[in-house]
Amino acid sequence: MNSSPVGLHRVLEPPGVLPQAARRLDPDPRIREDEVRVRLERLNLDAASYRQLHTAHDGDPDAIRAEVLQIIRTRGKMHNPVTGSGGMLIGVVDEVGPRSPLGLTPGMRIATLVSLTLTPLHVEDDLRRWDGRGEQVPAEGHAILFARSIAAELPADLPAGLSLAVMDVCGAPALTHRVVAARTAPVVAVIGAAGKSGSLALAAARRAGAARTIGVVPFEAEAARLRAAGLADDVVIADARDPIALVGAVGAPADVTVVCVDVPGCEHGAILATAAGGTIVFFSMATSFSAAALGAEGLAADVTMLIGNGYAPGHAQMALDLLRTEPGVAKIFKERVEE
Amino acid sequence: MNSSPVGLHRVLEPPGVLPQAARRLDPDPRIREDEVRVRLERLNLDAASYRQLHTAHDGDPDAIRAEVLQIIRTRGKMHNPVTGSGGMLIGVVDEVGPRSPLGLTPGMRIATLVSLTLTPLHVEDDLRRWDGRGEQVPAEGHAILFARSIAAELPADLPAGLSLAVMDVCGAPALTHRVVAARTAPVVAVIGAAGKSGSLALAAARRAGAARTIGVVPFEAEAARLRAAGLADDVVIADARDPIALVGAVGAPADVTVVCVDVPGCEHGAILATAAGGTIVFFSMATSFSAAALGAEGLAADVTMLIGNGYAPGHAQMALDLLRTEPGVAKIFKERVEE
Repeated sequence: MNSSPVGLHRVLEPPGVLPQAARRLDPDPRIREDEVRVRLERLNLDAASYRQLHTAHDGDPDAIRAEVLQIIRTRGKMHNPVTGSGGMLIGVVDEVGPRSPLGLTPGMRIATLVSLTLTPLHVEDDLRRWDGRGEQVPAEGHAILFARSIAAELPADLPAGLSLAVMDVCGAPALTHRVVAARTAPVVAVIGAAGKSGSLALAAARRAGAARTIGVVPFEAEAARLRAAGLADDVVIADARDPIALVGAVGAPADVTVVCVDVPGCEHGAILATAAGGTIVFFSMATSFSAAALGAEGLAADVTMLIGNGYAPGHAQMALDLLRTEPGVAKIFKERVEE
Repeated sequence: MNSSPVGLHRVLEPPGVLPQAARRLDPDPRIREDEVRVRLERLNLDAASYRQLHTAHDGDPDAIRAEVLQIIRTRGKMHNPVTGSGGMLIGVVDEVGPRSPLGLTPGMRIATLVSLTLTPLHVEDDLRRWDGRGEQVPAEGHAILFARSIAAELPADLPAGLSLAVMDVCGAPALTHRVVAARTAPVVAVIGAAGKSGSLALAAARRAGAARTIGVVPFEAEAARLRAAGLADDVVIADARDPIALVGAVGAPADVTVVCVDVPGCEHGAILATAAGGTIVFFSMATSFSAAALGAEGLAADVTMLIGNGYAPGHAQMALDLLRTEPGVAKIFKERVEE
């Protein structure tokens, strides 16, 4: 059978769009030659999606569960139509097509690293083991991975929740490493440095040869947390939305600035805190394209601005390796995951 | 007097923000040591701003003029509060502070390349020479440039309207040249190739050593225009919002993709049309940061995505040089400016 590496053959309506843009996907369990079928263990709903469902139904667990079921049955995927977001899943590989390039074998316990918004999904058990009170949804059923999907084996040496938290942000250390390693001993500032993606980015920057790392955090409790983790050469406090305060805190402009703080309005500060010829990597989904583009122009700032791509080859392994080998990263993740 | 290269000393309210974010600037004609005062000739309102004013006042010229005057008087800058946009201005340099780094001298006729949204502005003549019927506003008064502003001398050999049209998009060829020159003989696809920024990007790509250039346009009339200009090795037709159609038209993925088409929804197509390890430069202000970031992740695409910075050193001169030396660019600009 002909199949598309990005799953076009699974799109039921409207025809011709990519799976993420589709209203409805076909979760038929029969796989094509380059597909993989996964037996579901658990869905991890995206935080924004769960919050919306919780609010819309006044926290009523039965109503939340009913709507999640209804979305999956109607759309063939867990794609919240209001937030546009999905989440990830954990499962066990059930069947692997002979031409699948993903390197999976039956029995592997994996997490998918592409969004549920483009993953064909079928649920069999009415989600009856889920109490509707959190983002973790135990489920029976199956999901389909395409040739260009991404999945990572869950490491046996780490709790699944911790691995998932790392994989969720593993694009940040991968791209930070690449950008820092392309320069000679740059000064690297990470904004939102005591968070999950920020701590990984700091560790990746140091490993990639940063001459000095600066961790920017919004208040003293975060500064104490970051100092205790020992991941930054300097820890400074500033509101990243205030360009003048940020520049004052960072001091001499950085060669590479990594924005990991998920609040709007950090573009101008990041631009001013970066040296001419420097690079800014925006990982925050709250980044405004036009604020960055027009801000750099208005400030006559000759800076390279990257959209943080969540994918790079080997990104999950690199991030898990940082968690295993950098006690400061492990410390921050354990605190964050338990919160 | 102490002054700030980005004009913080001109912000009246709220204190501590950058001039672009300010509600009100101080257009006092007395300049600081690193400032420049420009005698106004003409404002060029941003197209989105003029369209909004025109719609809000049902095209009534007197009402449009009155609102522009009121905005300038209230804010000390021509910063449309609804669209958030400004425009550019043409004027003659009046006085240059002894520490200004802009290289201007009194009597030079210049265009400002930073937005009117951050330029202190005072109008003296009630705009009485403007009929309110277009974006070009003859005006008397003055404007202030900061140390980090950008201005370019209007070339004597070109009509002012043509120079302005080139300067308005001059960031695109500058960044395209830089990205293409950093690779060895890449294949370059330009989406929206028959427009102003697109034609300049094509010419810059060829000059920077592209092995082959592909110009993507939405329909046959544009294709004919681009073929007549001779700027692309291949001219193909596709709706850039349709990823599958775009990939089919481009064929083998490009090493560098430049997005110059100002419609939303072109991110996924650009990602799929770009080879692994390739670079995408987004110049369209309609680009969605999250669609690009999540799209690349969902497609497991190892591509570098750049936010098109409107500034690079020497960008105006490079673009004007392309206009003067590439007959195809001059042809497209003359057609576009006259439209």
